[in-house]
Amino acid sequence: MKKLINDPKNVVQESVAGFAAAHSDIVTASTDPLFIVRSDAPVAGKVGIVSGGGSGHEPLHGGFVGHGMLGAAVPGPVFTSPTPDPIVAATKAVDGGAGVLHIVKNYTGDVLNFETAADLAAADGIEVRSVVTNDDVAVQDSLYTAGRRGVGGTVLVEKIAGAAAERGDALDEVAAIAERVNANVRTMGVALTPCVVPHAGEPSFTLGDDEIEIGIGIHGEPGRERIALEPADAIVDRLLAPILDDFPFESGQSVLLFVNGMGGTPLVELYIVYRHAVEVLAQRGITVVRNLVGNYITALEMQGASISVLKLDDEMTELWDAPVQTAALRWGR
Amino acid sequence: MKKLINDPKNVVQESVAGFAAAHSDIVTASTDPLFIVRSDAPVAGKVGIVSGGGSGHEPLHGGFVGHGMLGAAVPGPVFTSPTPDPIVAATKAVDGGAGVLHIVKNYTGDVLNFETAADLAAADGIEVRSVVTNDDVAVQDSLYTAGRRGVGGTVLVEKIAGAAAERGDALDEVAAIAERVNANVRTMGVALTPCVVPHAGEPSFTLGDDEIEIGIGIHGEPGRERIALEPADAIVDRLLAPILDDFPFESGQSVLLFVNGMGGTPLVELYIVYRHAVEVLAQRGITVVRNLVGNYITALEMQGASISVLKLDDEMTELWDAPVQTAALRWGR
Repeated sequence: MKKLINDPKNVVQESVAGFAAAHSDIVTASTDPLFIVRSDAPVAGKVGIVSGGGSGHEPLHGGFVGHGMLGAAVPGPVFTSPTPDPIVAATKAVDGGAGVLHIVKNYTGDVLNFETAADLAAADGIEVRSVVTNDDVAVQDSLYTAGRRGVGGTVLVEKIAGAAAERGDALDEVAAIAERVNANVRTMGVALTPCVVPHAGEPSFTLGDDEIEIGIGIHGEPGRERIALEPADAIVDRLLAPILDDFPFESGQSVLLFVNGMGGTPLVELYIVYRHAVEVLAQRGITVVRNLVGNYITALEMQGASISVLKLDDEMTELWDAPVQTAALRWGR
Repeated sequence: MKKLINDPKNVVQESVAGFAAAHSDIVTASTDPLFIVRSDAPVAGKVGIVSGGGSGHEPLHGGFVGHGMLGAAVPGPVFTSPTPDPIVAATKAVDGGAGVLHIVKNYTGDVLNFETAADLAAADGIEVRSVVTNDDVAVQDSLYTAGRRGVGGTVLVEKIAGAAAERGDALDEVAAIAERVNANVRTMGVALTPCVVPHAGEPSFTLGDDEIEIGIGIHGEPGRERIALEPADAIVDRLLAPILDDFPFESGQSVLLFVNGMGGTPLVELYIVYRHAVEVLAQRGITVVRNLVGNYITALEMQGASISVLKLDDEMTELWDAPVQTAALRWGR
């Protein structure tokens, strides 16, 4: 294992400390319990949004804390859910009196711990709603999941729900738009190489020199099949086919296309993927009107990518375009 | 070689096409000759800035084309200088009547081809100045260089000179501030793994399972020494020592600290590097008042990082903070 780390057991604490120091204009870190929160939290009268989960997917979720997106992020150990305690503390920290939305990726540990935290926060008088993201079309159940996994679509849910909260929508409305984004986004990923969890020290799985895994999860958990390496365009075809089959995309539909790097794949490759994905969608009469290309929900240094397609409506588009000021996404005011 | 590419000889063209499609609100691509240019170029009465060099360092330079930074970027083949033709074409495309600044990383091919292009543009009546960046303290001469290499500091030169051009500074003034940034920035890098140039298909060098290269270049060219892997904090100490020794940093100095990923190293590690770098500088009485952390000048999928330290003055700080709207750097406005 070759990593720029010190003691593996301090990776998350040290990284969060560096992150908070680098972005002190936007966020503050609480160290015990560990969470990252908007410097201006709580925002009075506005819905607070909390997300979180195992670390190793950076910039998710800490990089999305700030104006127009998350109120707080709760990082667990690498690839391991945070316990309820820091989730409760983060929930209290962002509660401005209008309630708190939890955005939870569908993994058993995350769902359980966020549920417990929501109950504890409710017992303290905070109104909490939860939205569970499950956009991965690759597998029905998985190693850590009952039902589909929450992957790339989570980033889009967080941006759009964050914009709704920022404009002052009520808790039920913010929850409803988060649900709507999740219901309209589908994702599929591919891995070219595995990744190494620091405290494990060994790759979480192995791939042959010429082998790739189609439908990979963001923890390296199995997907649909292992095949020999193919040209990028053929891989893009394989990723898009189940997305397009999964629910009706009508010709004339406008979409947001999100090409996400798994961490170790350079931008030069992600734009090659993007180029062909636009072509494939165009052949189906689907127009890409918004996009996101880069490393936003990663699996440490894994090489690979995922493609997410979100069916947009006017409100989602407007909320996507709304200003956002976070470490990892920044536009507008 | 496992990459998300099609034919290795089309990597740059296809990637630039995807890039231009994804960022059509900011840039346009010319395909023959190949360059990326601001959609609003030429900007009348303002200095145009052109940079370029071999591809494989993305987002450098195309990701920095846009309002407040570069006017155009000229990508050569992977790790290979572009020829003078596209540089001349890009120079003409950004010439708004106030002259054009070339920002050139100090590699023999780049320097030669940008010089030829400047001569050709001058013969067509365009006033051109050139600034050659050479901020890498690792080696005096290198495989592709007479003198020091231009590395991470180039990003800072491009941002600050771009802001000067955007506020309407004359050509000599934009060149002068670019020179001043280059003179005040020092960089040193480390590689944990090599990278594979697509048309070569093999790693450009090899490193043992427990070996790292201190002082690596952005093409994988040799640095100062190979040593056994150490904890991140010890590696940061090794990178900062020659930077701090290289020119006088007085106690009380304010700096911009740039922790750059080489492409394959995840953010979680870069923030661990950032955290300790701030501590080391603080011990010397040096205060980090601005920062940049992420993958900005890369070597394909190489794992590793570089640290750049820029001595700031008030004008540089103001220009750093000025609005920028590019694919890879975006703030303000």
